[in-house]
Amino acid sequence: MKFLAKINVMPQKEILDPQGKAVMIGLKNLGVQSLHEVRIGKHIELEVDADSETQAQEKVDFACKNLLANLIMEDYFFELEKKG
Amino acid sequence: MKFLAKINVMPQKEILDPQGKAVMIGLKNLGVQSLHEVRIGKHIELEVDADSETQAQEKVDFACKNLLANLIMEDYFFELEKKG
Repeated sequence: MKFLAKINVMPQKEILDPQGKAVMIGLKNLGVQSLHEVRIGKHIELEVDADSETQAQEKVDFACKNLLANLIMEDYFFELEKKG
Repeated sequence: MKFLAKINVMPQKEILDPQGKAVMIGLKNLGVQSLHEVRIGKHIELEVDADSETQAQEKVDFACKNLLANLIMEDYFFELEKKG
């Protein structure tokens, strides 16, 4: 079975996000008012073959822990979508 | 009303995504098999005050078009969530 994993890797809540701060200032300069918080992370989409949803979940979890996210500073969330 | 916008900015389908290719090679070297495609973009979360959902949508759309996404190479998608 083929699954599409949609992964978000975000800086942890307690950690300052300088890229988000920069974007917030940029948007204010462009005239976008009433913004409160901007946080920027990565969005990763990957297609993976697996025998079951559990196996796909394990693969994606392994990928996040070992390559995609830096767990000291980032959190990750993902959802799986069955394809075809 | 306060809205949380979850925005994904992704490289367009027709455009080569070298970062995604690099991650795919990295994951294969880590032993993750049966991967097909990896694409990497940005995930942006921003909190915005607006009188209505339509107004919030307009603000976020403006932000995407004018700062967050490079429409020549990237597409953006977002969803709004009402907060509190």
